Amino acid sequence: MGMTSKQEAAAAVRAKKVELGITWAQLAKAVGRPVAWTTAALLGQHPMPEAEARAAGELLELGPDVLHALRLQPTRGALDQPVPTDPTMYRFYEVLQVYGPTIKELIHEEFGDGIMSAINFRLDVSRAEDPQGDRVVVTLDGKFLPYQW
Amino acid sequence: MGMTSKQEAAAAVRAKKVELGITWAQLAKAVGRPVAWTTAALLGQHPMPEAEARAAGELLELGPDVLHALRLQPTRGALDQPVPTDPTMYRFYEVLQVYGPTIKELIHEEFGDGIMSAINFRLDVSRAEDPQGDRVVVTLDGKFLPYQW
Amino acid sequence: MGMTSKQEAAAAVRAKKVELGITWAQLAKAVGRPVAWTTAALLGQHPMPEAEARAAGELLELGPDVLHALRLQPTRGALDQPVPTDPTMYRFYEVLQVYGPTIKELIHEEFGDGIMSAINFRLDVSRAEDPQGDRVVVTLDGKFLPYQW
Amino acid sequence: MGMTSKQEAAAAVRAKKVELGITWAQLAKAVGRPVAWTTAALLGQHPMPEAEARAAGELLELGPDVLHALRLQPTRGALDQPVPTDPTMYRFYEVLQVYGPTIKELIHEEFGDGIMSAINFRLDVSRAEDPQGDRVVVTLDGKFLPYQW
Amino acid sequence: MGMTSKQEAAAAVRAKKVELGITWAQLAKAVGRPVAWTTAALLGQHPMPEAEARAAGELLELGPDVLHALRLQPTRGALDQPVPTDPTMYRFYEVLQVYGPTIKELIHEEFGDGIMSAINFRLDVSRAEDPQGDRVVVTLDGKFLPYQW
Amino acid sequence: MGMTSKQEAAAAVRAKKVELGITWAQLAKAVGRPVAWTTAALLGQHPMPEAEARAAGELLELGPDVLHALRLQPTRGALDQPVPTDPTMYRFYEVLQVYGPTIKELIHEEFGDGIMSAINFRLDVSRAEDPQGDRVVVTLDGKFLPYQW
Amino acid sequence: MGMTSKQEAAAAVRAKKVELGITWAQLAKAVGRPVAWTTAALLGQHPMPEAEARAAGELLELGPDVLHALRLQPTRGALDQPVPTDPTMYRFYEVLQVYGPTIKELIHEEFGDGIMSAINFRLDVSRAEDPQGDRVVVTLDGKFLPYQW
Amino acid sequence: MGMTSKQEAAAAVRAKKVELGITWAQLAKAVGRPVAWTTAALLGQHPMPEAEARAAGELLELGPDVLHALRLQPTRGALDQPVPTDPTMYRFYEVLQVYGPTIKELIHEEFGDGIMSAINFRLDVSRAEDPQGDRVVVTLDGKFLPYQW
Amino acid sequence: MGMTSKQEAAAAVRAKKVELGITWAQLAKAVGRPVAWTTAALLGQHPMPEAEARAAGELLELGPDVLHALRLQPTRGALDQPVPTDPTMYRFYEVLQVYGPTIKELIHEEFGDGIMSAINFRLDVSRAEDPQGDRVVVTLDGKFLPYQW
Amino acid sequence: MGMTSKQEAAAAVRAKKVELGITWAQLAKAVGRPVAWTTAALLGQHPMPEAEARAAGELLELGPDVLHALRLQPTRGALDQPVPTDPTMYRFYEVLQVYGPTIKELIHEEFGDGIMSAINFRLDVSRAEDPQGDRVVVTLDGKFLPYQW
Repeated sequence: MGMTSKQEAAAAVRAKKVELGITWAQLAKAVGRPVAWTTAALLGQHPMPEAEARAAGELLELGPDVLHALRLQPTRGALDQPVPTDPTMYRFYEVLQVYGPTIKELIHEEFGDGIMSAINFRLDVSRAEDPQGDRVVVTLDGKFLPYQW
Repeated sequence: MGMTSKQEAAAAVRAKKVELGITWAQLAKAVGRPVAWTTAALLGQHPMPEAEARAAGELLELGPDVLHALRLQPTRGALDQPVPTDPTMYRFYEVLQVYGPTIKELIHEEFGDGIMSAINFRLDVSRAEDPQGDRVVVTLDGKFLPYQW
Repeated sequence: MGMTSKQEAAAAVRAKKVELGITWAQLAKAVGRPVAWTTAALLGQHPMPEAEARAAGELLELGPDVLHALRLQPTRGALDQPVPTDPTMYRFYEVLQVYGPTIKELIHEEFGDGIMSAINFRLDVSRAEDPQGDRVVVTLDGKFLPYQW
Repeated sequence: MGMTSKQEAAAAVRAKKVELGITWAQLAKAVGRPVAWTTAALLGQHPMPEAEARAAGELLELGPDVLHALRLQPTRGALDQPVPTDPTMYRFYEVLQVYGPTIKELIHEEFGDGIMSAINFRLDVSRAEDPQGDRVVVTLDGKFLPYQW
Repeated sequence: MGMTSKQEAAAAVRAKKVELGITWAQLAKAVGRPVAWTTAALLGQHPMPEAEARAAGELLELGPDVLHALRLQPTRGALDQPVPTDPTMYRFYEVLQVYGPTIKELIHEEFGDGIMSAINFRLDVSRAEDPQGDRVVVTLDGKFLPYQW
Repeated sequence: MGMTSKQEAAAAVRAKKVELGITWAQLAKAVGRPVAWTTAALLGQHPMPEAEARAAGELLELGPDVLHALRLQPTRGALDQPVPTDPTMYRFYEVLQVYGPTIKELIHEEFGDGIMSAINFRLDVSRAEDPQGDRVVVTLDGKFLPYQW
Repeated sequence: MGMTSKQEAAAAVRAKKVELGITWAQLAKAVGRPVAWTTAALLGQHPMPEAEARAAGELLELGPDVLHALRLQPTRGALDQPVPTDPTMYRFYEVLQVYGPTIKELIHEEFGDGIMSAINFRLDVSRAEDPQGDRVVVTLDGKFLPYQW
Repeated sequence: MGMTSKQEAAAAVRAKKVELGITWAQLAKAVGRPVAWTTAALLGQHPMPEAEARAAGELLELGPDVLHALRLQPTRGALDQPVPTDPTMYRFYEVLQVYGPTIKELIHEEFGDGIMSAINFRLDVSRAEDPQGDRVVVTLDGKFLPYQW
Repeated sequence: MGMTSKQEAAAAVRAKKVELGITWAQLAKAVGRPVAWTTAALLGQHPMPEAEARAAGELLELGPDVLHALRLQPTRGALDQPVPTDPTMYRFYEVLQVYGPTIKELIHEEFGDGIMSAINFRLDVSRAEDPQGDRVVVTLDGKFLPYQW
Repeated sequence: MGMTSKQEAAAAVRAKKVELGITWAQLAKAVGRPVAWTTAALLGQHPMPEAEARAAGELLELGPDVLHALRLQPTRGALDQPVPTDPTMYRFYEVLQVYGPTIKELIHEEFGDGIMSAINFRLDVSRAEDPQGDRVVVTLDGKFLPYQW
């Protein structure tokens, strides 16, 4: 039926990005959105509005079928298996294994019973310079949602 | 054999904490360490040095067998199943499902091939006031480790 | 061989629906059935009678092989893994994790030993306006079946 | 350490409820909360405020250690395995297998990209009389949360 | 809390049955129900009415806590793992692996889209004499439930 | 290599069966075997002798490569996952979850230690008329095999 | 309820066997059965007739509750997980991974469609002397059962 | 790329074998190796030396790409899932479930702590005539390897 | 039946080791074996000869039941789940995920088809001083075993 | 889209390597890197710098699309399933099952709380000659990383 899937669109994005030497930061600038949102959307985890898809498509020389796929509503979930095998991603799973209950206790102590939203949510990845070796700082920032009947 | 396990010690900590109305923040102050480290250690994910264990023990009126357990080297890992069922913890797993590859791409773009250490690592949970509802801000801060042969 | 599978038919439906800007509500009206049934059937979870398939096919400009697939008896089951990763679908799994035994207790208290049928069953998704933010209301409505030897 | 866990408290509740012939509806009335919330809380999926725990405890003749457990913050999740084996609970999992993508499509068509909250959420189980056999009606009612960066 | 669980009650039934040399057939006669229902109920998969529990309890010399447990509403599901390891039970799983789609096709050919109920359901295990070796005949007999919106 | 697999042959059978409006019963008659055996064989779970394959092939207008595949020795097992998701097939898994130990007890009481063979085995699916709704009767009939060293 | 389980009986057998310095061969001689059968029965995988249980019990100085447990009908299956972790047992799983289809092909070539029975079955473990290192020879010997409708 | 994989080569072997009516025994004779080794190698579990691959290829009329694949070093493991679903192969898994600890005990009693090698290993499948039905005899014969630091 | 299991013995060893301030190196010296072997044996993965068990027992003030357990033949396997969650152990699993096929290729290039024995095997953990941070060096040293029919 | 994946590139490398009779050692020499790094990179677990990719490509006569794939950032993880089935790789998993906690204890005894890095890491596979059979020596050498807040 010839529709490009979001996975195929993500592969096309990655391929063109390497071929043309374009960064996620440049893509975010062209799209006019934060870099993490732009990356997630181009990897198929957010539907892109038409203008944003077109802006990215021009920079990356993508065909209309890829643009079409970028605009589709995704069925989210990017891990092949419940526990990720890639070391860069695994470290975040390890953080959850080691510090998950700690984060839960501290949220409850500060806010009461509820959760950090992963929907009303933004994230940022940045570099903190440090003489003993620079640091990756990932900030997860979500609205607190109290259990409310 | 009668040794208290780290799981039993964590249960005792939680029970006394509620009974005596003590917060993680108060415990962290008594112990003289950041609150997230103190919480993780008292929940059994870090070995506590003797002085720290004793300071926590005095505040929580813990017996010597519990103090002993707090000082043991842990076998880490706090989730009962690969995918956590508690909604507060699940949201962090969901972040990994939706944004894992995004985080990976942004680390590689900024730092090259490597990982954020989960060992040379600290985390912080804080509140960001917001007129549309306060926000939970979790900061993951780990040293970048480049793949190095 | 060359037969279109129900999965391929569902993909074709989704693609044409976006391309032509048609809603599920319009499709349900054309088909003459409730919108949830129509959506489930076009996604491959119910066999469609010939007339209904033809009505949908005209609106969506589907070929005869797709119509043929829509009429086939399905092997039901739409999740790729036992626990869904898509956040919109996961919330319903979370409801089952948190409230499953509650629902079971209340069914038994009201009806005695038995189940809510998922076969003699209909569902509805609607919007409830609310000044604090509109609400999604999902109604599951199935015949009670008592354990009966 | 002698603290009663929330699982043990739930077992005590179930036992006394049968022994004394008390219904969830009576418990809800005594507690002054909706019956589904009360049931979930007494089964260990919500922390109970002190007054509510005391009201339930008086009706059920529960000891202070059980009351204490009812007030604790839970680590939620009530299924022993990812897929429930009990037929009454399984039917809801089957609904997710068969109609999960349908519910997702209809939420997106009506509300756009987002989820039904399972936190700002209430549920109700009721009986609908029907000459062909009464029906179980389960209403899931959660605030819509749009994806919002 | 001291309540006997349904698993413990089933163990007590099995133990007394062997000790006193009583058969399931004798128990069924005392209870006044079919032998398969009686066995399933005493193994904890059906709640027993008071009279039936008392009749079984007298024959097996069971204490009041066991009788109490036999009357409780069960959370059903008797396999330790998704695939049974016991050879006598595994053969029925193998039948499902080899003949499951066949049974599905024949139900649909004879009855249309729907299921055999496992709730409005009875089963029987009998011996068919055969010169080449007697045969086990298991009859599964459930009401047909058509998919009905 | 170009050999048709048994899965592809089964898909071809299903497609032609719908296209030509042929039933399993008609196929069984043409093949000269019981309908359940014929269905299982055409779905790829039994190797078909040449004459039977040819008879089915004529009725279904199958090509020689499909006939060839029908004759091959299968690697049996028709479920995509350990627990089937299709409701019509799941009910039989549920029977095993609820009544598996009951069936085991009754086989041992009647026959001693051993199993019902799933190899020296036949099954039948039939309709039992019933004023309260017709019933699906599935008969599993296998030789008893005693544990014998 | 105080009944000894077959697992506890097996543990008692292993403990007394080491304490008293008795071999499986001596036990088999006392019991009057092949050594592999005797070992499997004492480890809880076969029910023991009264005389055999008593003979083993005398040699191992077992109490009456253990003898009772040895006589019970087992629910078979001795592996904690689907894939065994013990290296001595794993090698047999590895044989199945590497040579399973080979064994299947050779059975079908020699006997036609069917199986080697694991019920009408015996096994033997013996030593074959070899100048390059003695060999373990495990003989699996089961009746061929043809697929027979 | 265009290289034939070992799985594709095995499929080609099976297809030509049926088409040409050749047995594993004939192939073993042509290859000059034991029949079980030859079968395993042609199914992709052993690398074939050039001469053996050529001998098999001549008999089966295989192309050079298939011969090439037969000579490659395999990544072994032939089961699609941890527990095999095919009844002929499952019986060997069942033997491991029921008799695994027995085999382990008898190896340790006869040889001390160690394993039967699955590398320095050969197997044989043969027919033992028996008036009560012929028997499949599978002999597993591997060098004993003692734990040796 | 009062026998101490190897897991309980390992817990006792760990507890006394911390209580008395004894190192694995001191234990290895007392026992007269390499430190890695001694550690593995005291953690329950090797049976200890009587003299070695007694030497360790004297240093650690262990009771006779613990000594008895240390001498038993183990059922090996020390991970609670297939993938370890403890970060110190996980890194070795990650090495297998990232470098497993590399190790396999290099073994085959150097030695031909076969394996590194994990039975005729020793390991060593040592420190390599390095100005950029000391290094953990783990040496796995096992006999090569060629595939040999 | 047409981009070659790293898996396809690895397959091409393996095929050309066999066709042209080139060893990993020769490739490592051409690339100017250690043999284990070179093998891992060509199997798709490390991104290759352009010069290294070109050197390997010349020796192996690889096309530009393969070279392109070799340079891409990988998503690491080379096992098809959590537990490897190939015997050569399984032995390393077995080492982790049997000796994992031993390695953990010895690292903690020598270095304190922390891990061996799998990122700042190198490995070597070599042959140790031994009159009783040569030995495979695998050296894992990673920087120690202490837990550091």
